[in-house]
Formats: sequence, C-alpha cells, structure tokens
Amino acid sequence: MDDRKVGVLGGGQLGRMLNEAANRYNIRVNVLDTAASPAKQISAHDGHIEGSFKEAEAVRKLAQASDVLTVEIEHVDTDMLEEVSKDVEVEPHWRTLRIIKDKFAQKKHLMDHGVAVAESRDVAGADEEAFKDVGKDFGYPYMLKSKTEAYDGRGNFVVKSEDDITKARKTLGNRPLYAERWANFRMELAVMVVKTKDGVLTFPTVETIHEDNICKLTYAPPRKVSKETAAKAQELAKKAIGAFEGKGVFGVEMFLLKDGTLLVNEIAPRPHNSGHYTIEACPLSQYDAHLRAILDLPIPELGLRLREPAIMLNILGGWTPDSHIQVAKKAVEVPNASIHLYGKGDARPGRKMGHITLTAPTMAAAEREIQPLIDAVDTQKGKSLEAKETPKDEPLVAVIMGSDSDLPVLRAGLQILEKLQIPFTTRITSAHRTPDWLREFSKSASDTSVRVIIGAAGGAAHLPGMCASWTQLPVIGLPVKATHLDGVDSLYSMTQMPRGEPVATVGINNSTNAALLAVRILGATDLEIRERLRVWMEGNEKEVLRKDRELLEAGWQSYLEGMGK
Amino acid sequence: MDDRKVGVLGGGQLGRMLNEAANRYNIRVNVLDTAASPAKQISAHDGHIEGSFKEAEAVRKLAQASDVLTVEIEHVDTDMLEEVSKDVEVEPHWRTLRIIKDKFAQKKHLMDHGVAVAESRDVAGADEEAFKDVGKDFGYPYMLKSKTEAYDGRGNFVVKSEDDITKARKTLGNRPLYAERWANFRMELAVMVVKTKDGVLTFPTVETIHEDNICKLTYAPPRKVSKETAAKAQELAKKAIGAFEGKGVFGVEMFLLKDGTLLVNEIAPRPHNSGHYTIEACPLSQYDAHLRAILDLPIPELGLRLREPAIMLNILGGWTPDSHIQVAKKAVEVPNASIHLYGKGDARPGRKMGHITLTAPTMAAAEREIQPLIDAVDTQKGKSLEAKETPKDEPLVAVIMGSDSDLPVLRAGLQILEKLQIPFTTRITSAHRTPDWLREFSKSASDTSVRVIIGAAGGAAHLPGMCASWTQLPVIGLPVKATHLDGVDSLYSMTQMPRGEPVATVGINNSTNAALLAVRILGATDLEIRERLRVWMEGNEKEVLRKDRELLEAGWQSYLEGMGK
Repeated sequence: MDDRKVGVLGGGQLGRMLNEAANRYNIRVNVLDTAASPAKQISAHDGHIEGSFKEAEAVRKLAQASDVLTVEIEHVDTDMLEEVSKDVEVEPHWRTLRIIKDKFAQKKHLMDHGVAVAESRDVAGADEEAFKDVGKDFGYPYMLKSKTEAYDGRGNFVVKSEDDITKARKTLGNRPLYAERWANFRMELAVMVVKTKDGVLTFPTVETIHEDNICKLTYAPPRKVSKETAAKAQELAKKAIGAFEGKGVFGVEMFLLKDGTLLVNEIAPRPHNSGHYTIEACPLSQYDAHLRAILDLPIPELGLRLREPAIMLNILGGWTPDSHIQVAKKAVEVPNASIHLYGKGDARPGRKMGHITLTAPTMAAAEREIQPLIDAVDTQKGKSLEAKETPKDEPLVAVIMGSDSDLPVLRAGLQILEKLQIPFTTRITSAHRTPDWLREFSKSASDTSVRVIIGAAGGAAHLPGMCASWTQLPVIGLPVKATHLDGVDSLYSMTQMPRGEPVATVGINNSTNAALLAVRILGATDLEIRERLRVWMEGNEKEVLRKDRELLEAGWQSYLEGMGK
Repeated sequence: MDDRKVGVLGGGQLGRMLNEAANRYNIRVNVLDTAASPAKQISAHDGHIEGSFKEAEAVRKLAQASDVLTVEIEHVDTDMLEEVSKDVEVEPHWRTLRIIKDKFAQKKHLMDHGVAVAESRDVAGADEEAFKDVGKDFGYPYMLKSKTEAYDGRGNFVVKSEDDITKARKTLGNRPLYAERWANFRMELAVMVVKTKDGVLTFPTVETIHEDNICKLTYAPPRKVSKETAAKAQELAKKAIGAFEGKGVFGVEMFLLKDGTLLVNEIAPRPHNSGHYTIEACPLSQYDAHLRAILDLPIPELGLRLREPAIMLNILGGWTPDSHIQVAKKAVEVPNASIHLYGKGDARPGRKMGHITLTAPTMAAAEREIQPLIDAVDTQKGKSLEAKETPKDEPLVAVIMGSDSDLPVLRAGLQILEKLQIPFTTRITSAHRTPDWLREFSKSASDTSVRVIIGAAGGAAHLPGMCASWTQLPVIGLPVKATHLDGVDSLYSMTQMPRGEPVATVGINNSTNAALLAVRILGATDLEIRERLRVWMEGNEKEVLRKDRELLEAGWQSYLEGMGK
C-alpha cells in the first residue's frame, strides 16, 4: 500500500497493535526494542533494531532503516529525534514530543493556547515553604506530579494536608515536580484525536475508569453524559491537539467537573489505552488512523464513528504469573468479547497483559456481559468482589399520564410490557397543571434510552399531542374515558392533531393495544422483540382456536352454561 | 491461553489470517511453508518449518514441533498425516482430509450419508464411449472434474456437446476424472460450519459470486433468499459436516437450484474464502472458531451470528504487478472498508492478493459503498465496466390502500416520505375484494426490508386492522373520509381494534401525519432519520414564527387582505 518503512520507538502492546494494522496494509514497520518484544513477535523481517528507545545509537540505526519515525511512548530522547529529523520524517514532530514528555511544559503550552487545564505551579527544586504556599493557594488535597517519566500513577502524590508534604517530597525524591490544583471531577473522559496533514479529526468521546491510577475500563459512549457534553469534549480535545505540530493520533484525557466544566488532564502523543476499543467498535482503529495520518493516506471521517456501544477492560496482571490467562479463559465463554493478549510472558501485579473489548447493541447489555470478566480481573488481583446490582436495561418506553386517575386504565398495558420484558418508566406529566415539566420531559426524552412514548389522557386530552410537538419520538395516544362523552372527546383530541405532529391513537381505554403498539414499534428494528411478540400472538391464536374446538364439541348451550351466563 | 503448539500445513493467506487470530490469543502456530510465506510474515519465532506441505520429511518435522496439526489446504499427503497421527493430534481427522481431497470420494461419502449432491459418475480411465454415455444420461452441458488437485476452476471442464469430449479429455490430460450432472442453479450459497468435540455449529448462510471460476464476492446475508432457505442451507451444511470425523471449521459450498432445491457442491476442510467476512461481521471469525475448535476451547454460539450486513470482495491480481495496491488505494477512501493484503509481493492475473470486507447497516448501503471497489478490481483485470444501476434502498415503509380512490388522499403523505428520503412502496390490497392477497402481503411483510405499514381505507376500513392481525410490524391506520358519516366510520373501525392487534390511527384524511408517524417510528432507532425529522420540524417552527412576525408588523386587516380573504 505504501513502500515507505515506518520506524517505531518502542515495541510494547501499542507497537504490537500498530503492527497488527500495518500487517493488513502490508506496510513494513521497523521496531526498536528488545528482541522478543510484543511488537516484534507479530512482525517477522530483518529490519527491526535491537536496543532501547533511549539509546542514541539505536535511534540513529532505526532512522537509517526507516522513512518515517514514530513513537509508542513519549519518554524518548527528543534531542536524538531532532538530530535524525534532518534525514527522516518524525511524526509527531519532535518539538511536540519534547513539550508533551514534560507534563508541566505540556500544561503551560496548553494554557498558552487557551486550552482549559487544572491550575498548576512549578515547584521543581523549591523548598518546603513553597509547597506549603501551594496548599494555602490551591487548598488541600492537591496533586504533586513529576514533570517527566510519570505514567500509570508513578510519579504522582496526593498531598492531603500540610503534614503530607515531607513524605511527598521524600517519596518523589529528586524528580522535577509541579503542583496541580485538585480537580473535583465527576468523571474522567477521553478522546482519541487524529492530526493529519489537512486537519484534526476525532474519534468519539469515551468514559475512562482508573483504579490504582491505572486505566481499568473504557466506556464508549460515556454513561450518563449528555450528547452536548460529549461533543464539547471532542471540541476541547481538537483544540488541544490543534496546538501541536505534526501528525498522528493523540490521546486526550479530561476531567468532567461536577459543575460541567471540562479540563484537559493529560495528552499522549500516540495511540492510547483509552483508544483500544476502536479496533472492534469503529470502522477504523486508532492504529489504522495513526498509520494513515503519518503516511498521508486518506482517513474518511465516517471511519472514526462508533458502530455499537463498547466497553474495554484491561487485563491487568494479578498475583499469579498466569492471572491474565485465567481472565482470558473466562472471556472465551463470552460471545461478544474480543480478546487481545500482548505476548508479555508472565504477569506481574498491575502490568498490562492484554485487554478485552466487548460490543453490544446497548450499553446495558454490554455491562451485563462484561461484569463476570471485571470480576475475574478483580479476583486475580485479590480484590474482594462488591455485590453489584445487575445493570438494568434503561427504559425503552416512557408511559406518561395526565393524572394518577389514569393509572388503573394503564394497568393492563403495563402488565403486557412486563410480560414481554420491555423496560419502561411511568411518569405523571399533566399538560395543563405541569406544562413546564411536560415540556422538559418531552424535549429531553430523545436524549435518553426512550424510543417510544405512550401518553394516556382523558377529556381535552392534550398530553400526547403536546408531547409530540416537543419531540421527534413516536408518541402513542391512549384516550381515557372521562365522565362525559364516553371518551370520544379524548379520541378526537388525539387523532385530529394538525398536519405535522401525529399522535398514534389506539382505542378508548385500550391500554393493551397502546402497549402492544409500542412493542411493534420497537420490534420494527429489534428482531428479538419482534420474535417475542410473534410468540405471544401465536399463544392468543391457539387460545381462540381451543375455545372454538370446545364450543364445537360442547354445543352452544352447554358452553354458555360453562360461562355462567 | 493454551500452551499447546498448533502446526499448520501451508502458509498462504488462510494460514496468515489463522496466525492473526492466534497472535491475539498468544497461541503459538508453527507454519510449514517457504521462508517468507504470508503466514510466516506475521509470526516471528523459530518454530516454523521450511519446506512444502507435500514433503513427508517436512510434515514429520512439523509434527515433532507441534501438539495439534491442522491444514490450510486439503491437497496434503494424508498417508503422512496418518503416520504422524500416532504422535500428534491431527484436526480435522486425516480420514476426513483423505475423503475430501478426492472430490469424487467426497461426493460418494456425502451421498452415503444422505446429503443432497449433484449426480456424479466415475469416468477415470474410461474410454470416449463412456463420456458419450454420460451425455446421454445427464444431458448437455455436463461437468467434467478432476477428482484431485482441482481448485479455483483448474481441473474443471464444461462439456457442452458431444463434440467437446475429445477436447475436454485432452485438456484435462491424465487426471482422474468424474462427471457431474449440470446444476441449473439460481445462485450459489455457502456456509462455514464449525465442528467441535461437542457438536456442529454454523455461521450464517452467505451468497457467493464466482467469476472465471474464482470466488469474487460474498454477500452476508444472501440477497433475495428467504430466511427459510437460508436456514435450510445451514441445516444441509450441518448434516454434510456431521458426516465427517474431526474438529475445525469447514466451508460448504452449495447450489440453490431454480426450483428451490439445495445441493452441496464442494466441501473445504478448513477456513474458506467465503468465510473471510466473519472477521469484521461476526463476534468470532472463522479463524477464531477454527483455533478454538481444534483446541477444545469454548465457542459460544452467539459469537457466530451476523452483526451487520457485509460484503467481501476479493482483490484478485490484474494485469500489472501492483494491481492489488491500486485497489487498496481506492479502498482507503471508503469509510467502512476493511482492507486485508496478504503480503504476496507482485500480483499475477487471478491470484488472490487480498480482500476487502465492507459492513453497513443495510445491504443496499453496503452495495452502494463497495461498487467503486468492484469497479476498481474489474478495471485492474481489464474488464470493461458494465453500466450498473445504483442499488436502491429497499423500502422501509409499505403504503397499502383499499382502492386507488384513496391515492389522492395519500398524495401529501407520499410527498413527505419523498422529501425526507424514506424509501417506500405503494400497493393496492383490498381487504374485501382481495383478502388472500392482503393476507399474503401482510404475512410476508416482516421478511422484507419493510419496517412500518401505512394502511389507508374508508367506510368499514378493515384494511389496516386485518393487516395488523397478520403481521408483527407496526401498522398505521389512515381513515379516509367516504361518502357518508364524514370518515368517523373509518376512524372508529381503526381505533377500536380488539385488545391484541393495535392500529396506530391518525386523523381523518391526514396522510401527512400518517407519513410523519412512520418517519417517527423509523427514527426511534435510526438517528439519521430522526435528525432529518428534527430539521424538518424546525423549518415548520420557523415558518410559523415568520408568519407571526408578519402578522404583528402588518396588523390583522392588512394580513387578511394579503391572504385574499
């Protein structure tokens, strides 16, 4: 596909998965690392370089053997990269790597470009007093971080009070330090960004869960985050990476604060743990995108979209050397789990030995399916399993009523939904007594898991019609028979909606049919639900046929008697 | 995951993709083939054997280095496998390989086990007269096939008339031949079957298109094949593979005759070209399944299902050595195309250089997206491009009416569907004049692409209600105002359906709302359609707000005058 040879500094799991992508394109990747490193195991040719990505001579050799250099880790010798960049393309740019590998320089660079980050202060070489001043200004707790060589929590210290300062300084030793204001975050988000010769593209926003400072889980899309926030995170990530030179994928880790603010936490100038899910969940993976970006091959934007909700679980080493194997053996029993082992030999506690990506039609289904594997990882690390609630499917149907007096009419319909295992929610939203609440409910419904709304109302019965005016979801109207007019008033109010905002009206008081219509609507695309409905209808058919046989055999008089009529 | 070493006879593209799967499981695969064969390129270790899978000594060496032997090709020395099977497990069983590599023995074996195949006759070493007798008995054309060493059309000859016999015998030379009755097939289907220690599982049925006797395209699911036929093909494939010993995946190629009969054409005792699509389109690929089957690892049946419609296109070598690269360069521009190049160096005409798999939410979308790549393959082989119709999206909405007199009422609704780009079909199906046709239509609707039905009717207006009784799809009722009763008759007939079979009724003659309700139902799960609806509703909102401003500015008298009223 491309004759140019790519040289990569580092041959761990990221280099390995980069090779996996390169193999399919028949692109030659020269790996600089030890002989049997994970990346080299799946790439058999004589262009690899043996050595460390920190050795100048080895980097020089790699440069000579390659047309484009890239990295799987940022803790590289950027002076060396600057030197070889005269002869070979380095992506991303060595200046970008130099800035990013120093976390304080990275923060300053982002601030200079107007990117929101947590407030930070240089305390490298400062005396005890300066650390106390930070506490006075930032409050406690605050973070102490090493500017360099810090990852997976190593080189970080949480200073909880003034008393911690001595211990913190001792623990972090002679590292060059900076202090960071504590980010009181609700959750952590991440976005993989692709910088090409033509511009900046992004993969979807994901939620990341860290444990012991190591990424444990990634949820795509993030749970309980609005589309607006997810889009804002993508914009922030784009802005952050737009501030750097060069091409390739970048991981942008962010804090979502409790007040909704987004702050960039850290940037990785390379494929990233939070982007592994893309291998199965997007048409193009982060590794495809990285190769294409550095080689100026096309990246159609639609290739970066999420096909299906996905969860990535790291297989972290536990207390036994085969702990990762034990997890993998559980994972082969899970139909939707894709297993990636990195070929690292024996496990050590906390070591990234592999990962599992699970995709499913809904996030709740993915959560249910992956839970035994999360438990397996926890068991291997000796963590006691918390009793967790099985994630419930989020409601597909919202049943709203103008008044609780409509609830008895709804009973039969709700029983049908339960019988056919359709998750639903019931709410009281009066069109006339709580018009603002109905408006709020209707406007936000399509941002939730709800796909169909049933609105029950009597009399003027404006509820479903008003709801339909504020949403694009299908709204089913259930006319309830009120004191006068036998329910015809409600029926007309629902069917006779003006052109533009239809209400799917069923018979007066017939909540069974309202529920069954909702099931049919869901079953229009969900074949499993459709099958449940088919079986249910078949049951009804058999029941009527049974009665017919009985009537034929017993005769009408005896049958009537049996009915007690 | 498993310490046992797998030895594979042959290291072409099938062995390569088997290694790709094995790499992720950290399972060691020893490949017997030449030094830089495709499979060895992505597997760097010193356990590979150099040589040919036909050399006895090389097979012996491979057996010594491995715990389980398997094949990527059936033309192997089964005597040798029989010998080494004393020391190493051979999967599938050497007896299975021995039977299958001889196509006539394969056919006989299948017939003995009651599996439907095309009628065949041994003509090995027979004289000219025997070949004429075949023509008398089977009719012309008939197929002459070499029992052994035949693949991708090599070793086959179509005998069109008695005059061809001399040429056929000369062309096929001294090969051991058998004759086969011509299968007058409508299309070719294939099923990948997985034989485990516990039983037989299958991947979905696919459609295969051959060109010049080489597989060119695979469509999953097959186009214009009923679910019943697809299921029958799976059953036939299961039965066929159940007749053999051993474990692993098997490709079963079948003919679907014009009368609906299914015949097994050929069996491959290994991963197969028609199963490449599984890498992207199923949770587990045929390579995952093969490894798991031969190593007795679990294979959850749900892992073999189709996630999304998929098309696989072989990148066959064209007239220039870089013809496959040219195709791949087109493919990187297509968002949903996954590219697999096999590392075979220069292309030769007809050589399998790689493949592309494209998955999409609908088959029509997949067909549209892949067409430029089919054209690219054809261009590279010098084939003139046929003018092809762009595949149209199959209808999502069926609009049925009791009589053509309802069509004028439907006009506004059909215009809305066109405006919002919803593919639909319109049919006349009277509940009383064509009850059987309405029944047939309703019963089969859910097997087509249709997801919502709109039924328009006046008077007694039984149409949508009867339709709803024969389908599980959502049915929208549009009451049409007839001569008497102002349409209320139709309205009641639709809303007042008995409990069990709802009709989603809209306002009298309001086809706009019937159409918009269909759009909402589709948009419940299709976010793109929902967005189109949102934009349309926003347009309406702006239009009314504009009028309001005008009324405010002009005053009511002048506004009325402007309306000409």
